[in-house]
Amino acid sequence: MADGLTLESVRESLIRQEDTIVFSLIERSKYPMNSPVYVKGFADIPRFTGSLVEYVVRKTEAVHSTVGRYESQEEHPFFPDNLLPSLLPPYYHPKVLHPAGDAININTTIWDMYFNQLLPLFATEGDDGNYAQTAACDLECLQALSRRIHYGKYVAEVKFKESPDGYGTLIRAQDRDALMKLLTCEAIEEMVKRRVEKKAMAFGQEVTLNNTDKEVKYKVDPFVVSRLYVEWVMPLTKLGIANTPLQDRGAVGDSDLGSDSMKLQTRNQLSKDVNELIFGVDMMDTE
Amino acid sequence: MADGLTLESVRESLIRQEDTIVFSLIERSKYPMNSPVYVKGFADIPRFTGSLVEYVVRKTEAVHSTVGRYESQEEHPFFPDNLLPSLLPPYYHPKVLHPAGDAININTTIWDMYFNQLLPLFATEGDDGNYAQTAACDLECLQALSRRIHYGKYVAEVKFKESPDGYGTLIRAQDRDALMKLLTCEAIEEMVKRRVEKKAMAFGQEVTLNNTDKEVKYKVDPFVVSRLYVEWVMPLTKLGIANTPLQDRGAVGDSDLGSDSMKLQTRNQLSKDVNELIFGVDMMDTE
Repeated sequence: MADGLTLESVRESLIRQEDTIVFSLIERSKYPMNSPVYVKGFADIPRFTGSLVEYVVRKTEAVHSTVGRYESQEEHPFFPDNLLPSLLPPYYHPKVLHPAGDAININTTIWDMYFNQLLPLFATEGDDGNYAQTAACDLECLQALSRRIHYGKYVAEVKFKESPDGYGTLIRAQDRDALMKLLTCEAIEEMVKRRVEKKAMAFGQEVTLNNTDKEVKYKVDPFVVSRLYVEWVMPLTKLGIANTPLQDRGAVGDSDLGSDSMKLQTRNQLSKDVNELIFGVDMMDTE
Repeated sequence: MADGLTLESVRESLIRQEDTIVFSLIERSKYPMNSPVYVKGFADIPRFTGSLVEYVVRKTEAVHSTVGRYESQEEHPFFPDNLLPSLLPPYYHPKVLHPAGDAININTTIWDMYFNQLLPLFATEGDDGNYAQTAACDLECLQALSRRIHYGKYVAEVKFKESPDGYGTLIRAQDRDALMKLLTCEAIEEMVKRRVEKKAMAFGQEVTLNNTDKEVKYKVDPFVVSRLYVEWVMPLTKLGIANTPLQDRGAVGDSDLGSDSMKLQTRNQLSKDVNELIFGVDMMDTE
């Protein structure tokens, strides 16, 4: 495949990104909630009225933009209005995404999900004053989640380039509900859920030499990690794909997804194929 | 103990910091060497002639200093000349360290060790253009190593406050070689080495649902992690302690470490006690 991308490398990346997400949650869990990090105007920062974490994310993204982070289509800033031009010599980053797909950025939704839903599920109560470290950990979590969730549209593009005909059925779907349904395959999602739960156990365990721990205690509840995937990562991945405007790709046509003209069996197979890809599962490996 | 610190919490922190170090190395290993990150003057940055990684570390440390990161005695900047005042309301961080101990910063040595010795041991050859991400990962590794290595002097202080008499023998040692010898207990170091190796296996494994992987492959060679501890983390921890100027603590006296007046048995017991503490091992737990 052009740009050195293969379905195999895409799958590997998705699986590897799960590890990064689990590591980042475990690292954030070292610190308690530290609620002042999230209070607007807590610090006396000139010309800035947001929260500490917003300040740290904005400032760090600006630094990273000057050294070219957002030249890669895999990276999505949380504050795109805040970036600076890259000062690096040009590097050829593969432009796999169509500009319309590249422009999609659902980080506002991810930000809201992380702070309002996910974080309260695993951060313990308390305040240890380590605000900068906490905000830096939040940034790691946000970046890992953002990269993973946005990778869905990336994958859709790769799949389209590899097989425009087979994938045309998806592309012709202008009915988002039908598309979301097509993007759902419960067997695959169940496997991903079990895999990330297992990762939370492996990476969040207390490793000792004697292995005779009285009770097994994980640094982040594995159930929270599987819930993160089921409730947010997988639906938001699909949302990113469903939002990708593909109708200008020369494959315009009436949707036949919901129609009788598409046999149920074909639809199920397509759904399974697409899901194997967007969630990094190979049924051959696991069945 | 004052400030809520106990020997148990210190030990827990040391053990927990091992996990952070292993995670950070695994995350850095996602990217190849990316050597332009380390070339001085690679980017066209106004008024800056250093490497990209130095730029990212300096800029990030400056941001973190404004939100109070270095108010905590556990944190040591790599570029102290570059920090800005904290803009946060004052927070009471326990000042466990004596000012003379607090002032010790061996990050120049840690920086050199990380880039010139450790990184080449585990980074694969190649250049994928993800320079900002690479530098950010390097920063995570550096901070984790710095926090862990400097924690040695921290621990020494806690131990001194808890038991000034028993620890007096150490403090009176003005002979650094004798002190370094006292700080060495091979049985304990062997256990730490095995523990971090085991962590590298647990956290760096490929987690799959079926567990029938043909060959076990770790993301970072566990041997590199144990070598990191044996060759650098443990010796540098001792160096940090040995460099802590304690002679102004009202416990001045002639060194009796090397003399016959101190029985070998006592010396061995002290060495074991101190080592259990500075490396986070409880022999009771593991034997």
